[in-house]
Amino acid sequence: MTINTQTQLCGVLGNPVEHSLSPAIHNAAFQHLGLNYVYLAFPVKPEQVKEAIQGIRALGNLRGFSVTIPHKVSAMSVLDEIDDTAKHIGAINTIVKTDQTLTGYNTDASGALQALRQAHVTLAGKHVLIIGTGGAARAIAFGLALHEPITSMTLLGILDEERTALAADLRKGSSVPITDAPINQETLVSAIEQSQVLIHCTPLGMHPKVDGTCIQKVLLKPHLTVMDIVYNPRETRLLREAREIGCSTIPGLEMFLHQAVAQFELWTKQSAPINVMRKILEAQFS
Amino acid sequence: MTINTQTQLCGVLGNPVEHSLSPAIHNAAFQHLGLNYVYLAFPVKPEQVKEAIQGIRALGNLRGFSVTIPHKVSAMSVLDEIDDTAKHIGAINTIVKTDQTLTGYNTDASGALQALRQAHVTLAGKHVLIIGTGGAARAIAFGLALHEPITSMTLLGILDEERTALAADLRKGSSVPITDAPINQETLVSAIEQSQVLIHCTPLGMHPKVDGTCIQKVLLKPHLTVMDIVYNPRETRLLREAREIGCSTIPGLEMFLHQAVAQFELWTKQSAPINVMRKILEAQFS
Repeated sequence: MTINTQTQLCGVLGNPVEHSLSPAIHNAAFQHLGLNYVYLAFPVKPEQVKEAIQGIRALGNLRGFSVTIPHKVSAMSVLDEIDDTAKHIGAINTIVKTDQTLTGYNTDASGALQALRQAHVTLAGKHVLIIGTGGAARAIAFGLALHEPITSMTLLGILDEERTALAADLRKGSSVPITDAPINQETLVSAIEQSQVLIHCTPLGMHPKVDGTCIQKVLLKPHLTVMDIVYNPRETRLLREAREIGCSTIPGLEMFLHQAVAQFELWTKQSAPINVMRKILEAQFS
Repeated sequence: MTINTQTQLCGVLGNPVEHSLSPAIHNAAFQHLGLNYVYLAFPVKPEQVKEAIQGIRALGNLRGFSVTIPHKVSAMSVLDEIDDTAKHIGAINTIVKTDQTLTGYNTDASGALQALRQAHVTLAGKHVLIIGTGGAARAIAFGLALHEPITSMTLLGILDEERTALAADLRKGSSVPITDAPINQETLVSAIEQSQVLIHCTPLGMHPKVDGTCIQKVLLKPHLTVMDIVYNPRETRLLREAREIGCSTIPGLEMFLHQAVAQFELWTKQSAPINVMRKILEAQFS
């Protein structure tokens, strides 16, 4: 890579950012396509997110940023435009800079949909079960409700207030019938019975607590397609048990990959070298 | 160069910045020492310099910046601390970030002094003639008046207001006797007669108008050491004619090199690889 006065800068804004995989993925993709871009990690304290983003507007040769915890909501008020889906979600994970205009997107949503498409999951006419109601669940639920011809959706989660708020927002923002309930053995059995796709959106099962799972193996049914947002380990306990009983499974790495691919394409207006990016990601967990 | 989440960012703030040599010099130096830094060019519009610098304070992993035209004066009000010499000069060319604190320096001054030192010019007891009264002249004049045991200084320039203001500031800020006058054949003859060192600080002679000079060859005297701040071409008409009549000469490239060396050392706290940096600079003009 030869850096010169035309080199474009991208990066990730978060706190902490030391463990971000994004610099490795995006720099490999830039290099593969011979693009004059670099991608760096920028730790930003919560109280300084406004100055950081205003600085991004003022500094030339900046092209785009990933936004991660804890700035996905607070960054929105400093941007000039927000994509409609991201507005519904109430959070962004991507900033695109065009001249002086900063636009926010949420590629967690589009990345999850793309991971399902790539796995040849047909969503038309399906009932989808979402486990968890946090930021990732919001993004995926709105992505599905706004952009896919699903029939209906069930939300199960332990935080009543967060769950009922998300259900209400989904009912207001889309015409998809939404059911929500606390998560327990009874609600799981009933929801799994009527669902064809299950998407796990809590941190349970993530390294180092790899034995965690929300769903006992005995409750899983082989008719399900199971996607997990957890990508470390590559095959979580949930995905392993789902595979063992005969479910189709989609690892969290695919969703992570496709949210990065969508960012890359928003910034560069070029097709991302997906296999190069997947290889870098897989190498982190091999 | 392998970029990761720890990579430190430096860069140049200016407008325009497309022709800056700084990215090439500093990146070569970082690579030579194996430092995990990159240096980029950031065009910044005059009305956005405040937001740009506040952004630099807020974004982590940023270590330091070069500041060039037109921001050398306006950047000062946004910084937390200003080095004393830079305060006298009224302009900075360097920002150093330490935690959340931004400090301004002027390495045009220290770079010029270092170029003189490297050329084994003894300044003690000398009378110095400065031609021109703009930003570079201010930096060099204050560098000499505050830090070198010179006997006296003459300022010659065409802008009466700028020249008398600089002379007044120098008299207020230091105890060195200062003479100033409009530049013409008569004042040149007299000033050259009493000076041992002549420093040319106007843009005359710069590429593409390489035939320009403030000082007719016939007025030059072989007892002079002549330094030019113009570094493109490497040997200006003034320096060529001075060499031809027997003067010692110091090319502008040396001053440019040493202001960059001083910046590098302020940012990295390491000795700069001067020869690597000189080689990159020389390659630009060979």
